Order: sequence, then C-alpha cells, then structure tokens
Amino acid sequence: MTLIAVLAGDGIGPEVTAEARRILEAVRPGLDYQEAPVGGAGYLASGHPLPEATLDLAKRSDAVLFGAIGDPRFEKLERALRPEAALLSLRSELGLFANIRPATIFPALASESTLKPEVVDGLDIVIVRELTGDVYFGEKGQRTNAAGLREGHDLMRYDESEIRRIATVGFEMAKRRKGKLCSVDKANVLETSQVWRDVVTSMAADYPDVTLTHMYVDNAAMQMVRAPTQFDVIVTGNLFGDILSDQASMCAGSIGMLPSASLRAWSGDTGMYEPIHGSAPDIAGQGKANPCAAILSAAMLVRHSLDDEASAQRIEAAVAAALDTGARTADLGGNLSTREMGDVVMRAL
Amino acid sequence: MTLIAVLAGDGIGPEVTAEARRILEAVRPGLDYQEAPVGGAGYLASGHPLPEATLDLAKRSDAVLFGAIGDPRFEKLERALRPEAALLSLRSELGLFANIRPATIFPALASESTLKPEVVDGLDIVIVRELTGDVYFGEKGQRTNAAGLREGHDLMRYDESEIRRIATVGFEMAKRRKGKLCSVDKANVLETSQVWRDVVTSMAADYPDVTLTHMYVDNAAMQMVRAPTQFDVIVTGNLFGDILSDQASMCAGSIGMLPSASLRAWSGDTGMYEPIHGSAPDIAGQGKANPCAAILSAAMLVRHSLDDEASAQRIEAAVAAALDTGARTADLGGNLSTREMGDVVMRAL
Ligand SMILES: CC(C)[C@H](C(=O)O)[C@@H](O)C(=O)O
Ligand SMILES: CC(C)[C@H](C(=O)O)[C@@H](O)C(=O)O
Repeated sequence: MTLIAVLAGDGIGPEVTAEARRILEAVRPGLDYQEAPVGGAGYLASGHPLPEATLDLAKRSDAVLFGAIGDPRFEKLERALRPEAALLSLRSELGLFANIRPATIFPALASESTLKPEVVDGLDIVIVRELTGDVYFGEKGQRTNAAGLREGHDLMRYDESEIRRIATVGFEMAKRRKGKLCSVDKANVLETSQVWRDVVTSMAADYPDVTLTHMYVDNAAMQMVRAPTQFDVIVTGNLFGDILSDQASMCAGSIGMLPSASLRAWSGDTGMYEPIHGSAPDIAGQGKANPCAAILSAAMLVRHSLDDEASAQRIEAAVAAALDTGARTADLGGNLSTREMGDVVMRAL
Repeated sequence: MTLIAVLAGDGIGPEVTAEARRILEAVRPGLDYQEAPVGGAGYLASGHPLPEATLDLAKRSDAVLFGAIGDPRFEKLERALRPEAALLSLRSELGLFANIRPATIFPALASESTLKPEVVDGLDIVIVRELTGDVYFGEKGQRTNAAGLREGHDLMRYDESEIRRIATVGFEMAKRRKGKLCSVDKANVLETSQVWRDVVTSMAADYPDVTLTHMYVDNAAMQMVRAPTQFDVIVTGNLFGDILSDQASMCAGSIGMLPSASLRAWSGDTGMYEPIHGSAPDIAGQGKANPCAAILSAAMLVRHSLDDEASAQRIEAAVAAALDTGARTADLGGNLSTREMGDVVMRAL
C-alpha cells in the first residue's frame, strides 16, 4: 500500500492541499492517505510544531503532501517552537537534501510577471537547492564576547560529499533538460564556496552533454532580473538557494502557481511536496487561495516518489488547460474559489 | 590641502575615473590628486593587488576615488592575490563599515529597466550594507574532516556594536528621506540575524520619525521584483547586502548609472567612492564605457567626504540634464564615447 502523509499545516494550507489530494485521488486511485498536524497546527495540537506522531508518519510514508506553515500567533515563541522549525526538522530528519524548484511561466499567464513580457518569454528555470547543510545547520548560537558584547554566530560549511550529491542532482536534471547547469556560489570570498566550486568543476567531465558555468551569487541575483531566460538549471547551496529561488519564482510572476519537491533520491523514494507560497493568514479560511501550486506539487509527487511521469504530465497539462479556459482565482485577477478552480482542473484531466 | 586618492584599477576603471576626476576638478577646483595602482594593476606593478604604497595613500587621503577591479588574467591566483582582495582589504583597513548604494531611476531612463515601467516608476531605494563584518570576515578555512573529507567553512558573526553602528546609518538615512527603514535578515534560521533583529528593534525608539520594518532576505529578494518601490532605505549585513544591492541596481535598469560610497562616518571623513559596475574587460580601452556611475560616485564623494551637499547636487543635476538632452553611451543604446559623455555632463554643469 502506498502511503501519502498529508501535512496540510496552517493558514491556506488545508484548503489548497484538499484540492491537490482530490486531483491525486483521481489520477492515481487507491493510494492510502493519513493526515497529521504540523506547524502552528502542530503546536496547537500537542505543544510542538512537529509532533512526534507527525514525524513518524512522514518517515513511514512514501511521500509527504505538505501545505504551508506559519501563523503570526506563534512568531514570538522560541525558535524551536515556531512553525518554521517543523520544516527544517522534517528536511533533516528525512534527509531531504535536494530541493527542486521550477520557475516556469504558463503561456496563459505570460503577462503576470512584473518583468517585461519579452524578458520572461519562455522562462523555464529549475533551481536545485541543497537543503540539509550550509549555514542553516552549522553550529550556531549567541554568546557574550571578550569585549562584553552580545554576539550571534552561525557556521557556514559544506564537505565534498554533500556538494557532490546535490551537484549530481543538478547535472542529472540538466541532462534531462537543455543541458545547461549554472553553479552559484561566492567563491571570491568564501572558502565554503571555493570547495563547492572545485567539487562541482571536478564532476563536469562525467557529464559531457552538460555545459557547466559558474556565477557569483550577487551576479546571479542581477542576471535573474536582467535576463532570466539565460538559465536552465541552477544548482546552489541552502542559503543562496533560499534567496534565488524566491526571486526566480517572482520573475515567473505568480507565486500561487509554483510547486516544489524536497528529495533524497531522484525517484522512487520518499519526498516532500509543497507549494512555494506561504500560509497567507490574511486570506485563510476564505476559500480564495489558488490551489494550482499545491496541485502542481502533487504532480511532482507522482513524478518523483511514485515514478509515474505520465500521470505527472497529465496533471500539469490539466492545469495548463484550466488556465487556457480563462479560469482564475483572485490572485490572478479572477473570481473563482479554491474549490471551483480545483473543479476546473478536475474536468480538464 | 584636501587629498583625493585616485585608484583607477583595471579594465574600464581608468577611463571612467578620468571623467569623474574632470568633473570633480571643475566643481571643486584646488583639490590635490594622487594616483596609485590597485587590483590587477597593483599586482602587475608590484606583485600585490593592494601595494603598500597604495594602501598608505588611501589612508592618508581625505577620500578615495575608486574605479573598478577585476582582470581575468589573475583569476586563478590564490585568493589573497586576486584583484578582489584589494577591495576587501581597503574596506577593512580603512574601517569603511557602511556601504551606501542608491538604486534610482533617472526619468530619462525609465524604460531601461527590464521591469515594467509601472513597477519601477519613482524607484528610489538606498541600500545600506554593512561592509567589514559578517561571513566575509569571520574565521574561514578548509580542512579534512573526521570522515576524511575535504570541507570548507566560514563563520558568520555580528556583535551588537557592529550592528548598532550600521543600523545608525540606516536610521539617519531614513530620517533624511521618506522615513522608512526596512531591516533585512534571516532571523527565522540564523542566530546572527536574531541578534541583528533584536539590536535594530531596540534602536527604533530613538527614531520616532522612522518607521522600522523587518523582512526575511528571501522575501526581500522577492519583493524587490514584485514591488520595488515599496522600499525607501534597506539596512542589512554584508552578505545579504551584496546580493540585494546588485539585484536592486538591476531593477533600476542601467548598471552604468549607479554609484556607491563606502564610509566610516556619515560625513567629513575618509570614504571610498566607486561605480557599482565592474571592470568590464571586454570593452576596456575602447572608450565605450558609461562614465555616469563614476561621475555620480564623485558626487557622493563631495557630499560625504567634503561635506558639500550643494556641489553634490550640482553634479547630479548635470548628469540628469545630460541624459535629458538624449546623450547616451553604448550601454544605453547611444553612440557617445566615454569622453563625449563626460563632455556633455561638463557642459551641463
Ligand atoms: C521558513 C524558512 C525556514 C524556509 C527556509 O529558509 O528554508 C523557507 O524560506 C523556504 O524556503 O522553504
Ligand atoms: C568583488 C567582491 C569581493 C565584492 C563583494 O562581495 O563585496 C563585490 O561583489 C562588491 O559588492 O563590492
């Protein structure tokens, strides 16, 4: 029995996840679903953003369908109890080291980007972000230093094996796409980046069909505004990937449309799938949220964890077809509810 | 005698700096100028990107007019000998902890940005970036770890006094402008950022006329694409500032137009002034580069190190007037040479 853990989370998480699940049930009947609270909902249910039972369920599952987390009520708690902590723990506990974030423009939404149409025409980037290392997980803390001053510190670090496994995902992804891999670092300043660059460079010979380039992160942030279509696949560390993937998604225009996958293997293994948008507390419970990002995350689930490319493409095509009919939720200037948008995608399947 | 150190550097550095100096001589006659090599030029002259005599000159000077550094011939040298090392050393040796980077659109160039005109209309941001701390200057190195793997590490850190002095610049800047200060960090993950946020927050009471907000760096990178005009002054650390300021400059459209200042005091003290563009080796020596960023850097020099706001505004108005006449270098689709563009600004003075 294939088990899908449904961690809908906070805010609009439950609403959009419900639509994603509905589509998944239609495309791949017979999967087993189990729900568990996470984030603010986890904290409310049992005093911790990632209750033990939720983590257990995620570990036992074949894939995690994740909604969104974040709740302003819990922002002042200590870091370990805030909703976001659940996300970081899930990533590291499940070993989900590879975050895959496509930034694509559906033709029907070409005018949504704040970038000029000719600048984003054909935009189709995948950002491969390392997700279980870097300054996120290095030793961190606060202390009173020798001068008696309060000081905060976080250690940035990567070793060659961590770099090699994420770069492998980048190369493999590029091989299946346009064959262009851009590795982003800050090797002119950081030793971590120097090791990163050396390791990635040393792997290029194994991928003769992939053209590898390197870019400093500041330049990458600039190029993403100047000429984003120059990119095919970008591979980078946890921190730079956090920044660049959010930036790229905004170039694509509509944050309500973009899915993500967090993986530990290219396919056939447990992964976590979530829309890149947040919990949007301001519109939670109103049935206004765009379910497309969650639905497209379900497509990634089917592709990677269930190894079923055909069904993944079927879902993606249904979303594109739904948009082509003019169906739009409020974020895209339309007036369909979350459920109604789900209905249109369902009919398009 | 007021001494200006002219460190023209590599590539197009000398060409654009010559025009900046010419304008400076016209606006503020009687300053003393001394030139010295830096970057690749420093390495060629004496085997080090920051020759001792150059550093001495900079230290003795009232202000440093800096061109650009970077030369592909020296990219493979060890880090300490690469052109960029000169920049990092100058910043730390002179204690230039505050990097001021305006991102503004001249009305005549409103259509140059890749963002839609309505998105950048009225764009006028100043990024205040900390420049002598953070992961740039923390302990760094490579080692073979316990598992026998090569590993790189860089320590991110800030203490409260470093944060307070840069935040002061941010608050003072906001007070003189629209009164909005956005502090950018990653406090949901980093302890360094948590201290940053606490210190900045604790200062807000001293600036009742400034509205302080906080934003995570990933969201800031997104908002800079989504709605950049929401920002007035942004204050942030060295690494996030590196990324966001490059991104912001590209939102402004023409990297050939944007100046910067690196300061250790708000005014009346030594500072370093440089265009944000690089050395552009591909067009070096051809007299094609846009001198406006260098000229506007001279305006910042006059404003901050010479405490002469009137002359600064005179230079800035001359650049705007030159653009209004339709004068354009190649980067803006025109055919004026560097020198000719300088001539037009000169006449507009
Ligand atoms: C919520 C936060 C900890 C997280 C991150 O920084 O990784 C988020 O920004 C993301 O990108 O998933
Ligand atoms: C050249 C490099 C070391 C430098 C930096 O990262 O600070 C540059 O990108 C800048 O912003 O001035």
